[in-house]
Amino acid sequence: MTLILSNDDVEKLLTMPDCIAALEEAYVEMAEGRGISRQRSDCITPTTYSDDAIYGLKSMDGVVPKLGVGAIRINSDIVTNPLVGNTRRRVKIPAAPNDRYVGLVLLFSTHNGEPLAIFPDGVLQRMRVGATNGLGVKYMARANAQTIGLLGSGWQAETQLTAACAVRDIRHIRCHSPTRANCEAFAARMSEQLGIPVEAVAQPEDAVKGVDIVMCGSNSLDPIFFQRWVEPGMHLSSIKKPEIEPAAIKAAHKVAVHTHDTSPILVVAKGANFRENTKEAGWNAANALDFKTFPALPQLIAGYVSGRDDDAQVTCFLNNLGLGYQFAAAGSVIYKRAVEAGAGHSLPTDWFTETVHP
Amino acid sequence: MTLILSNDDVEKLLTMPDCIAALEEAYVEMAEGRGISRQRSDCITPTTYSDDAIYGLKSMDGVVPKLGVGAIRINSDIVTNPLVGNTRRRVKIPAAPNDRYVGLVLLFSTHNGEPLAIFPDGVLQRMRVGATNGLGVKYMARANAQTIGLLGSGWQAETQLTAACAVRDIRHIRCHSPTRANCEAFAARMSEQLGIPVEAVAQPEDAVKGVDIVMCGSNSLDPIFFQRWVEPGMHLSSIKKPEIEPAAIKAAHKVAVHTHDTSPILVVAKGANFRENTKEAGWNAANALDFKTFPALPQLIAGYVSGRDDDAQVTCFLNNLGLGYQFAAAGSVIYKRAVEAGAGHSLPTDWFTETVHP
Repeated sequence: MTLILSNDDVEKLLTMPDCIAALEEAYVEMAEGRGISRQRSDCITPTTYSDDAIYGLKSMDGVVPKLGVGAIRINSDIVTNPLVGNTRRRVKIPAAPNDRYVGLVLLFSTHNGEPLAIFPDGVLQRMRVGATNGLGVKYMARANAQTIGLLGSGWQAETQLTAACAVRDIRHIRCHSPTRANCEAFAARMSEQLGIPVEAVAQPEDAVKGVDIVMCGSNSLDPIFFQRWVEPGMHLSSIKKPEIEPAAIKAAHKVAVHTHDTSPILVVAKGANFRENTKEAGWNAANALDFKTFPALPQLIAGYVSGRDDDAQVTCFLNNLGLGYQFAAAGSVIYKRAVEAGAGHSLPTDWFTETVHP
Repeated sequence: MTLILSNDDVEKLLTMPDCIAALEEAYVEMAEGRGISRQRSDCITPTTYSDDAIYGLKSMDGVVPKLGVGAIRINSDIVTNPLVGNTRRRVKIPAAPNDRYVGLVLLFSTHNGEPLAIFPDGVLQRMRVGATNGLGVKYMARANAQTIGLLGSGWQAETQLTAACAVRDIRHIRCHSPTRANCEAFAARMSEQLGIPVEAVAQPEDAVKGVDIVMCGSNSLDPIFFQRWVEPGMHLSSIKKPEIEPAAIKAAHKVAVHTHDTSPILVVAKGANFRENTKEAGWNAANALDFKTFPALPQLIAGYVSGRDDDAQVTCFLNNLGLGYQFAAAGSVIYKRAVEAGAGHSLPTDWFTETVHP
């Protein structure tokens, strides 16, 4: 049978510790060259949805033979670029029927090629981001780290905390985000979920002052953490490049990135109202940070390089780019747990295979 | 609803003339830069299937905004490389449950992103190859061409003939392939299907002598058509590079290729028993034919270049590489016809979409 799972299924089946463990094993495979990843590709065209929107068909592949799976993650997006204040934001529109987004993971067996499962990417998308930064914490933060300062309370913030709490004995968290009410609601929810105090604070400085781990989990394309806030022994963590001021990155004794994979393959059709993410592009050029010179997370996990030499060092982990590989690794756990639990809709595998030679 | 279609559905729903018309329209879009394609990628790893086998996860994307669709074609293959005689062959194993292959096309709407259909790639795979060479015939063969010499009687041969017969008033076909019995069975079947004489002949020279159109539709990695067989006014057609002797290609007045897309992105894991197709690689290097210098089929169809200037010219079309784009173009017709016919299994689109932001 081929399983069709929902985001609810994924949420119930995959715990953060399981997700972290699967990625950890998979990254060792990647460091050793036994696990492989194909960089993301974005095909961008006009859409009839609206004149200022674009259509994007995006895909990324990865195979983890040790876990017996290959995965392809596909996004079929309607995207607009509204001006919010002075900033142009990239906004995905839930334009599919019933106001829904379209992101899918297809999981295949490396043993016999069969399609094992199809499930939406939304819940796993943020879990794998969290798990990846969690592994950054595990391999780079002080072993005795107990406090987190979180910048951001949006859709990526939650899994940043659950992941960090899965790898360190965290006792206290402070968080800040621009809209006070959002931040307070987030803090209340996370306090209950994690069973430790999560405190909303009015200023970003208040969130990060004196903490062991700084986590940037925002959707900002401008720096939100600055060199002047760096303290000895801190671990800095970011889910995208521009969050941490380049001077702060340069001030760290150890810096690691998620991957050395190159930028996505970008194919843009004539007439597509496509705006390059100029802020991020500008950030790259202006700061002359060559990410290839930093070790990648798999190299840390496989033990080729150390993430930290002593408790006084400042460390920094930049989750610079996602990989289809992560969907394969975590997908292997989701599939296994789904089979055990009898979850999802079971469809005949014959519907997704063929007797005709392809 | 999202439709799950079978190869039988595809075969019933898509006629060769429809497939040719959809590709023709899509190629104009491509020539004008409005339709786009992402080159194929192959992720190759070991598999537990057997020591001498490899696992391959392959994908290619394409979007045709004018037809309202994007498509991704995925293959999840177990492949072996047995020695057959003196030649090492690349053999896909139907290793999935019930001895089946795994190749899928996912079709999405560029209007709202929704997943429209999922169907196996096998039937469409050979139809789009045939349709592409058919368009080569339409734009390069003599308008009064009436005879075809076909080399090959295997799984690609049939659609080569149906496509050519869809664009020219073909009256007589001769075919040759190494195993006489196969060739005779093929000839008998195609005679009935096409309603014109299809004659199996003992020697390749007999098949191609005096014909208007030579079609190579074999699985050979060695040349099967030679310069000494070229006659004035002939159109030469091939489904892969090495079939036509380079000297014969060079003897043609007009040569066109399917695409200028670069070779597939190849990512190979350590330990994969992967054999590069050295014959084809050697062919490229040895013959110094720079395919970028030949016009591509979309340029012919859009009228940027002519395929033939007079009836005496020898023309040559090389179907050098497939594109995900073809699956989008033909997929748009399959989907439209499937909706009209109420074909396939209808599943709730909500199963393949999400409320969670991806």
